[in-house]
Amino acid sequence: MHLILKNARLVTMEEGSTGYTPTEPCYLLIRSGLIVAMGEDLSTLYGNTPKEWSDCPVLDCAGSIVTPGLIDPHTHLVFAGSRTQEFEARLNGESYQAIAQRGGGINSTVASTRTASVDELIELALPRLDSLIKSGCTTIEVKSGYGLTLEDEAKMLVAAKSLENHRRVSITTTLLAAHTVPPEYQDRADEYINYVVTDIIPHVAKHNLADSVDVFCESIGFTLEQTERVFAAAKAHGLAVKGHTEQLSNLGGSVLAAQYQAQSVDHIEYLDLAGVKALATSGTVATLLPGAFYFLRETQLPPIEWLREFNVPMAIGSDINPGTSPFADLQLMMNMACTLFRLTPEEALRGVTCHAAAAIGQKDTIGQIRKGFKANLAIWDINHPSELSYQYGLKGLKQRIFAGSIEHVA
Amino acid sequence: MHLILKNARLVTMEEGSTGYTPTEPCYLLIRSGLIVAMGEDLSTLYGNTPKEWSDCPVLDCAGSIVTPGLIDPHTHLVFAGSRTQEFEARLNGESYQAIAQRGGGINSTVASTRTASVDELIELALPRLDSLIKSGCTTIEVKSGYGLTLEDEAKMLVAAKSLENHRRVSITTTLLAAHTVPPEYQDRADEYINYVVTDIIPHVAKHNLADSVDVFCESIGFTLEQTERVFAAAKAHGLAVKGHTEQLSNLGGSVLAAQYQAQSVDHIEYLDLAGVKALATSGTVATLLPGAFYFLRETQLPPIEWLREFNVPMAIGSDINPGTSPFADLQLMMNMACTLFRLTPEEALRGVTCHAAAAIGQKDTIGQIRKGFKANLAIWDINHPSELSYQYGLKGLKQRIFAGSIEHVA
Ligand SMILES: [Zn+2]
Ligand SMILES: [Zn+2]
Repeated sequence: MHLILKNARLVTMEEGSTGYTPTEPCYLLIRSGLIVAMGEDLSTLYGNTPKEWSDCPVLDCAGSIVTPGLIDPHTHLVFAGSRTQEFEARLNGESYQAIAQRGGGINSTVASTRTASVDELIELALPRLDSLIKSGCTTIEVKSGYGLTLEDEAKMLVAAKSLENHRRVSITTTLLAAHTVPPEYQDRADEYINYVVTDIIPHVAKHNLADSVDVFCESIGFTLEQTERVFAAAKAHGLAVKGHTEQLSNLGGSVLAAQYQAQSVDHIEYLDLAGVKALATSGTVATLLPGAFYFLRETQLPPIEWLREFNVPMAIGSDINPGTSPFADLQLMMNMACTLFRLTPEEALRGVTCHAAAAIGQKDTIGQIRKGFKANLAIWDINHPSELSYQYGLKGLKQRIFAGSIEHVA
Repeated sequence: MHLILKNARLVTMEEGSTGYTPTEPCYLLIRSGLIVAMGEDLSTLYGNTPKEWSDCPVLDCAGSIVTPGLIDPHTHLVFAGSRTQEFEARLNGESYQAIAQRGGGINSTVASTRTASVDELIELALPRLDSLIKSGCTTIEVKSGYGLTLEDEAKMLVAAKSLENHRRVSITTTLLAAHTVPPEYQDRADEYINYVVTDIIPHVAKHNLADSVDVFCESIGFTLEQTERVFAAAKAHGLAVKGHTEQLSNLGGSVLAAQYQAQSVDHIEYLDLAGVKALATSGTVATLLPGAFYFLRETQLPPIEWLREFNVPMAIGSDINPGTSPFADLQLMMNMACTLFRLTPEEALRGVTCHAAAAIGQKDTIGQIRKGFKANLAIWDINHPSELSYQYGLKGLKQRIFAGSIEHVA
């Protein structure tokens, strides 16, 4: 379980300006899925055990750029049904209301997901997963939120985690039972939150089905009070929290999330200065979702300048979902983050590596090329990391390394 | 050279509403690269020559959606050099002026392209071409415009046409010598147009290097008068014309182009009602380039409602180029046309099939699945053609048929 990379120009994404500058072609030593050492002089890297490495495979990267494997910190990858007819109906002039009245919108995804089996959900998710993998991902966060019953939320989380058995990828799961009020609880959101808090969260925690708990805190989602009840229950059961906050208005969800030491707050187009300061204090990541911004033709930009000023780490997610961001491609999101939100290519790359790792609570093990970190890597056919954000349709992914093993890309 | 497709759900893109509705699974007969017949009852399709088809290969499409091969009617696919550093510098706060002063902008692409050989230009273009092919293209228009001397424009056109020898694709070429005033003609645009009109166009026409002639008619490009001189010279030499018009302002370039029976006018965000009416009269196609609109963060939308009202056919191109649309993917452009310009998925698909064919003067031979048309087809792993515009990163292209031959897709 040893592997040596040679002639690798590493973009380590460590803190500081050097983390973005490709190294000279060098060696990288991997043992048991972890990065052991890196540098230009191989003999010094062996340490006291040169024999240990004598027969190990050597991958010649031929001067290619090597980055940490990309991390998508926000997806709704698992769902059933299609919303393409709704997309088409909207463009043919049908109103949201009319579509909702005939069972469209998120309720149609909920209905389809509830009737799907775990195996069906996996089968439907795999092409989306393959697309994310082709764009360089090695770790992907997946949320529930289309089941909205204990059984169906659990089913989604099981399907999500099971993707690890089908592809060489790491999945982290998030319970998003508080995504929308299910039809059977219409006008009884508080009662639904009771159910989430007293039944779903304890069950999910007991069976280790999720790593964190998320809430859609919004005028068309859940109130600040409802959100807090969910956060409190999550914390009481030892689960991390994160929030869909300040996407369409400012309810104060991000400040609340910061009080609960949230891993991340996501969307945040309407985040204000007080919110930014709260994130800076709590160490919460600001996860930007430019795909939804683009697809919904939003005009309110997230407060990038303030986030920079207060050193709030910015992550970027695909938010892939059938209603508002049908894009299974993290490199496209990097371009959108630069084009629409004016992130620099370095910020975009940090957003899908080290900062995305922080957004899912794994900043000490993935998202950087660093001694002791997991050997999840992407090898690119590019000359400079800025190309990942600049051009599109020329992915340039040559190979992935997942858990220390080489995977060739079609 | 015979091929039969069976169980193909054809989206023929013929005129009228049925052209967008998938047929029942049916047969399609191909002979010598042309579509011979299609229908559900194979025996009637054979005509008087059933023996002719007895040993021919049969491709079972298994109910897949089959569309005409996609057509990209506007690209700058051939160029050398990279503008990724400029992209990064801009996002790091450097001004256009500062970048231009140190040789950036289009002049850097001109400088790189002038020093490249034909073979180098081909090698650089192939990954972009492969990406367009993967998004379903079988025909691609390619412009010159980074050479700006007789020799270098000819070199670009030769490189473009030579792509047909490297991939199974049809290339149509456009002379765009009037793309920008070259540095050596600074402040002498009229003299440069003299050179284009008296030297470049005659040479290109004589050696059959281009199918049409294009001009960038814009405040930062060429005036209406200069544009007309180029159009007149092109017509005098038997070449079709088209224009980059009304992208950033309204100079009247589209009306002028219509007077010269242009195949297409492209960009046209600032086109006015008089311009739309002129296009309707001349039968000129309005080619929309949403990638540049997106990348430049433009806000002025092309006059879609008027174009619909006056039945001006709308095409969609990638406009792939290093400065304003670094996107080698026509399906992404379909999504952008729907998302940003509010085209319907049917309009988007027509924009890259039958209307794109018209935009390059080939509406009677490609862009529809129709008896006598070329057998250039795309076979998709989708249930409805709207999915091509809706989702992204899930290309769903299973196979292409080019000139009647099957090509599998990685
Ligand atoms: Zn989301
Ligand atoms: Zn162009």
